[in-house]
Amino acid sequence: MADLDGNDDILSRVLAGETRAIARLMSRVEGRPADVAPIMAEIHKNAGRAHVIGLTGVPGSGKSTLVHAMAKAIRARGKTVGIVAVDPSSPYSGGAILGDRVRMSDLSTDEGVFIRSLATRGALGGLARAALDTVDVLDAAGFDVVLIETVGVGQDEVDIAEAAQTVLVVSAPGLGDGIQAIKAGVLEIADVHVVSKCDKEESSRTVADLKAMLHLGSTVRNRYGWEVPVLRTSAETNLGIDELVDTLEKHRTHLTESGEGAIRKRRILETRILKTAEDLLRQRIGEGDALTSAVESTLDGKTSPRQAAEELLKTV
Amino acid sequence: MADLDGNDDILSRVLAGETRAIARLMSRVEGRPADVAPIMAEIHKNAGRAHVIGLTGVPGSGKSTLVHAMAKAIRARGKTVGIVAVDPSSPYSGGAILGDRVRMSDLSTDEGVFIRSLATRGALGGLARAALDTVDVLDAAGFDVVLIETVGVGQDEVDIAEAAQTVLVVSAPGLGDGIQAIKAGVLEIADVHVVSKCDKEESSRTVADLKAMLHLGSTVRNRYGWEVPVLRTSAETNLGIDELVDTLEKHRTHLTESGEGAIRKRRILETRILKTAEDLLRQRIGEGDALTSAVESTLDGKTSPRQAAEELLKTV
Repeated sequence: MADLDGNDDILSRVLAGETRAIARLMSRVEGRPADVAPIMAEIHKNAGRAHVIGLTGVPGSGKSTLVHAMAKAIRARGKTVGIVAVDPSSPYSGGAILGDRVRMSDLSTDEGVFIRSLATRGALGGLARAALDTVDVLDAAGFDVVLIETVGVGQDEVDIAEAAQTVLVVSAPGLGDGIQAIKAGVLEIADVHVVSKCDKEESSRTVADLKAMLHLGSTVRNRYGWEVPVLRTSAETNLGIDELVDTLEKHRTHLTESGEGAIRKRRILETRILKTAEDLLRQRIGEGDALTSAVESTLDGKTSPRQAAEELLKTV
Repeated sequence: MADLDGNDDILSRVLAGETRAIARLMSRVEGRPADVAPIMAEIHKNAGRAHVIGLTGVPGSGKSTLVHAMAKAIRARGKTVGIVAVDPSSPYSGGAILGDRVRMSDLSTDEGVFIRSLATRGALGGLARAALDTVDVLDAAGFDVVLIETVGVGQDEVDIAEAAQTVLVVSAPGLGDGIQAIKAGVLEIADVHVVSKCDKEESSRTVADLKAMLHLGSTVRNRYGWEVPVLRTSAETNLGIDELVDTLEKHRTHLTESGEGAIRKRRILETRILKTAEDLLRQRIGEGDALTSAVESTLDGKTSPRQAAEELLKTV
C-alpha cells in the first residue's frame, strides 16, 4: 500500500503509537476520509483492544474536568488514555471553544495521553463518522482506554456516546434537580451514573434523585445483569475518581462474562456503518450540483421536497 | 387524489385549518411519510405564507416559558400561532417529557394556537425531516406565525432551528455567564438574542456579555444590514415580550426588503431536501437486512466499515 503520500509509512507509525503520525492520520480521516480509506481499513483490523468509554452530560455538568481527573487516575495505573472530545462549536466559525481543553494542559506533556477535539462541522455533518474513525485510530495505536466525551443533547451526540462499550452519564448538582439528565434523553443509556461536583452540599439531592429515577425506570438496568451504580465524584478533591475507574474496569469484565460485550460490538458497528453511509451520501450530494437543481425545481413548484429528495438519492 | 383513506378530504380539511385533520396529518407524516407523500406535495404548494421563527437555547434557558409568553402576545395581536416543540427525550422510552408542555395548558383551549411536540426518535433519526414537515402543515393550514422550539445543542437540533426565516437564541442569567450559548454553538446563528428571566439581578451581566461577544465576532451580524439586537425579557412579569414580537415583525420586513428572505428560502429548502434524503436513506436501510449483512461481513474482517457503508449505499 505504499504510495506517493507515504501511506505505508504512516500506517506502521500509527500502529507503533507515534504521536505525530496519529495526529496526521486523524486530520486526514477527519477532512478527506476517501483519501485514507485503505489505511483506515487496516486501522480497523488492528482496533478492538481498547476499552472504549462514552461520557456524556449536559453543558455545565463538569464532563471535561471529570475526564481530566479520570485520565490521571488511569495513567496512575500504568495504562495509556486517548481522549476524543466532541465540541459543539459554532457552525459558522467552525472553531472549537478552547476553555475546557485548556484545563487539560498538564496532561499534554504526557506521552501516554492523546487528546483530540472535534468540532461540529456544520450542516453537511460527518461528526459522528469522524469521531468514530478517530476512536479507531487511538484504539489501533495501542491506547488502553479511549474516552469519548460528547454533550448529552442532540441525536448525533448521544449516538456517538452510545457507540462505546461503557456509557457514563454525568450529572451536576444544582442544574435543575436531575431534570437536566432526563431532558438530555440520556438517563437510560447509562451503564454508570456519575454525579460530579460532590464537594457541593446539594449533591446529595442529585444522587437521591438519580437513584429514585433508576428505581422507577428499568428499561436498561439489569437487562444484562448489571446494576447501574450512581457514583459520587469531585474532580476538585479527587473524591470517588479511583472508585469510578474500578467500576469501569468491573463493567468491562461484566460485558465479557455476560456476553453483552459481543452484542454491543455489533451495535457499535451498526451505528458506525450507518453514520458512514450518511456521511458518504452527504459528501456525494455536496460534490455535485444536484442539490442546487433540486432546490430550483422545488422553488418552481415542479417537485415537492420529498420528490426532490428521492431524485437526489437516485443521482448519488 | 381521493383514495380509500379519504386523503382528498384530509387535505381540504387541513387547508381549511381544521384542528383534528391537522393533528391526524401530522401523526401520519411523522410516522409513515411515504403514505402521505402526495398530500404533503399539495401541502407544500400551499405553504410559504407563515412567518417561521426558530427558537433555540440550552436546557434551562427558559425556552418553553418564553414561547408561551410570545404565543399569548402574538394572539393578542389577532394572529394565529403554530408551535412545534422538539423534545429531546429518551431514545429508549421514546416518550416526550411533559413538564414544559404542561405550562402551555392555558393556551390549549385557544383555537388560534396549535401545539405539537416531537420526540427524538432514536438512532434511526428522521427528527429534522419530521419537524420541517410539521412546520409545512401548520403553514399550509393558515397559521400566521409558526414557532419551532429546539434545544440549542446537537447538530440536527441546530439545523432545525436554522431552517427558519428568523432565528432567536435564548440565554438565561446564571447559566455560566453566557458561555452556555457559545458552547451550544448557536451564538452566531441568531437574528435576535433574547435574555430570559430578566427579573433576576444577574441578567444585566448576561446582557452585557452577549453584547460584548456580538462586538467581537461579526460573521453574521450586518451581513445583510441587520443589527442583531439583545433583548431583555421576563415571561414572569411580561417584560419585553411585546418589544420582542415587534422586533420579529421588523426582522421579517427587513428580510423582504433586503433580499435576504429569498436567500433564506433557498437555504431552508436545501436543508429540507437534504434531511429528507437522509431520512429516506435510513428508512430504506432499516427496511431490508442489508445492514445486518454489512455488520457481519465487517465482523468477519471481509470489509472495512467504510467499504460496508459503500456497499450499503449501492443496495438502496
